[in-house]
Amino acid sequence: MTRTDDGHPGLARRSLLTGGAAGLGAAFGTGALLGLGGGLAGARALQPAGGETEPSGCEAEPFGGEVLPCHGAHQAGVVTPPGANIRYLAYELRDETDADALGRMFRILTGDIEGLTSGVAPLADPEPELAARPARLAITVGIGPEVLRRVAADPAPDWLGPLPVFSRDRLGTGYDGGDLLLVVQADDATAVAHAARMLDRDLASFARPRWRQHGFRQARGAESEGTTTRNLMGQLDGTVNPAPADEDFASLVWLGEESGPLAGGTALVLRRIRMELDTWDQVDRPGREQSVGRRLSDGSPLSSPPGSGEHTPADFAARDELGLSAIPVAAHIRRAHSSNPAERIFRRSDNYDDGTEAGLLFACYQRDPLTQFVPIQRRLDEVDLLNEWVTHVGSAVFAILPGFRAGETLGGSLFA
Amino acid sequence: MTRTDDGHPGLARRSLLTGGAAGLGAAFGTGALLGLGGGLAGARALQPAGGETEPSGCEAEPFGGEVLPCHGAHQAGVVTPPGANIRYLAYELRDETDADALGRMFRILTGDIEGLTSGVAPLADPEPELAARPARLAITVGIGPEVLRRVAADPAPDWLGPLPVFSRDRLGTGYDGGDLLLVVQADDATAVAHAARMLDRDLASFARPRWRQHGFRQARGAESEGTTTRNLMGQLDGTVNPAPADEDFASLVWLGEESGPLAGGTALVLRRIRMELDTWDQVDRPGREQSVGRRLSDGSPLSSPPGSGEHTPADFAARDELGLSAIPVAAHIRRAHSSNPAERIFRRSDNYDDGTEAGLLFACYQRDPLTQFVPIQRRLDEVDLLNEWVTHVGSAVFAILPGFRAGETLGGSLFA
Repeated sequence: MTRTDDGHPGLARRSLLTGGAAGLGAAFGTGALLGLGGGLAGARALQPAGGETEPSGCEAEPFGGEVLPCHGAHQAGVVTPPGANIRYLAYELRDETDADALGRMFRILTGDIEGLTSGVAPLADPEPELAARPARLAITVGIGPEVLRRVAADPAPDWLGPLPVFSRDRLGTGYDGGDLLLVVQADDATAVAHAARMLDRDLASFARPRWRQHGFRQARGAESEGTTTRNLMGQLDGTVNPAPADEDFASLVWLGEESGPLAGGTALVLRRIRMELDTWDQVDRPGREQSVGRRLSDGSPLSSPPGSGEHTPADFAARDELGLSAIPVAAHIRRAHSSNPAERIFRRSDNYDDGTEAGLLFACYQRDPLTQFVPIQRRLDEVDLLNEWVTHVGSAVFAILPGFRAGETLGGSLFA
Repeated sequence: MTRTDDGHPGLARRSLLTGGAAGLGAAFGTGALLGLGGGLAGARALQPAGGETEPSGCEAEPFGGEVLPCHGAHQAGVVTPPGANIRYLAYELRDETDADALGRMFRILTGDIEGLTSGVAPLADPEPELAARPARLAITVGIGPEVLRRVAADPAPDWLGPLPVFSRDRLGTGYDGGDLLLVVQADDATAVAHAARMLDRDLASFARPRWRQHGFRQARGAESEGTTTRNLMGQLDGTVNPAPADEDFASLVWLGEESGPLAGGTALVLRRIRMELDTWDQVDRPGREQSVGRRLSDGSPLSSPPGSGEHTPADFAARDELGLSAIPVAAHIRRAHSSNPAERIFRRSDNYDDGTEAGLLFACYQRDPLTQFVPIQRRLDEVDLLNEWVTHVGSAVFAILPGFRAGETLGGSLFA
């Protein structure tokens, strides 16, 4: 873990908001983030109620009405700005959910997603006022191999199923696998809660809930620009991450034509990584920094001077004044590092803390988990100083479906 | 329930931020909200990391560094701006925690609160970087009767203990009572998680966790000004609420000199109110509006025309064109209403949704729950159209301690 997050310098949240999204490809472009007008009949209460005057000067517009378009070559929620609140909702298909039923299910999901993410409540939404403030809601849909079997599409790719066993895994705590995944994220927890409830209700006749996980990251508007999010161990988490603008991003992350009906989608690996924060807190600062290979203060690699910043490349050959490796041989960033550029993954993790257990909802996107996530995790599973304080207690792999355009149905390629 | 929130017009969050806090009394005043400088040695990463230029024009300052002072006649967290994320942490005292130990515990808590809320990590904080972005963190401490017994202070007030039994209560689900309460809230979930962990660790030798509850409300910056927060039933929740600027606010909410060591504190009633959202969703809109007595769209009372707004006073004598009560006789707002102005409470509730259960963390502050909350709840328990969809499954009463000033110790009056 601590291979997290999407906080690479090319994808700061504010720069997306202000038209800096030019390099992000077909999924969305300039002007993609729109303030929602008060078009909804029930949304009057969303206007200022009088008696309160805004102070003059620079005031941020409320972002509750902001919309992240759901249409595009790729689904929203993978490279679009991450929401401060996220829920992963996994389901098992009911026995009677055959290909026809799945077709209906995807049509219903399409309508729900188009409505909820645009702030115009779907017709069946009993609480349209809760839908009217989507706060950049994104709903991303993934499938397990069972969906492919039932629609009799091409055989599932090798990687779509349980990952190989890692020796330190302690799975079986209730957060493994699933036939269907919804990733619901927004900058407002109420928007997420409402969308999750709507989707749950509309899926009820097709699938049963299997597990759900809630995550969070720094609140929108709280952040300092250009700084990667910290995880609950205090680490800047996810410093090294491919950027959507990188030349090889598509070949690392988006499934290609060889993936047939999944082309334009991606493979998600979600790992629930429990942190032993009580014992972590007892380690002194140098000990913690040696375990990671970076300074806690600014994320600079131990191979560079303090203050050199998190984006200074780690020099794994550097020695300290005693002739020892500046970055210890078993430090997390050394073990996670690969010299093979094709072995990279696009990380996008969140913290979780349910009151009794805390850690990281480690999420990464890639073309092939077996050749990208697995070799990295094998090295970490074998040796990583951080292992004393982290345990993988949940694991799931889903094929994130390709994007869809207005007039199309999400998942339509499965039935083509 | 749905008697919630603090969203009365006099306490909009932004007006506090911009110096509109003049009427709020001694607890805090103009200039109370300060941007935190980069004083912390480890906080370099909190500065923009270069390579990213802010677009010109109006841009909100990140609020992660904002501080809500913890010192004053009253503790922060009661009338100060509510955080988007909140945790209620209840503890049971260990057998060996005698008066001396409680004295030590309160001294430790004082230091933790002063440090964490000011963004300057307490010395013992192993993750000072996580403390550096408090995002208006407030930590509020309450006690049960056992603390008063152990410090051999005056006898506990009558109201400090379990509430009278209400016929519809279904308590015993694990969210009742407690000897000690911490209310931790901020606009950033990471700040809350970090503070909760620090406090938990420092309390470990004095007390055991009893229960914990997480709540949320609309994200900071998402809101439209002047609108009360919606609960998960879609209702504008907490429209009628005394305002800290009201002449009788102090006599309604803050404990007076007759309360001895608790003077300057207040009484908190916390009720976990489960919502049956699945069946609520099946009721048509008119049915839901009749149950509440207000329109879902804008919160206007059914006694006034649509669009008249949530702050139009309800006219309980009004009749519709058929001669029936415009606000049904068993509607929630009619049953909750009292003609006795001394029976009012200061509500400040949040939503909860742990994936399997959702509802409201109903919180209210007052001088005496037995004469303020209890008569209201008796009426609702007896008859309230909303009862079909809400059940109280947790209940606790705490004495929120008086405030403390710099150089003083929180809870010091208990030992005077």
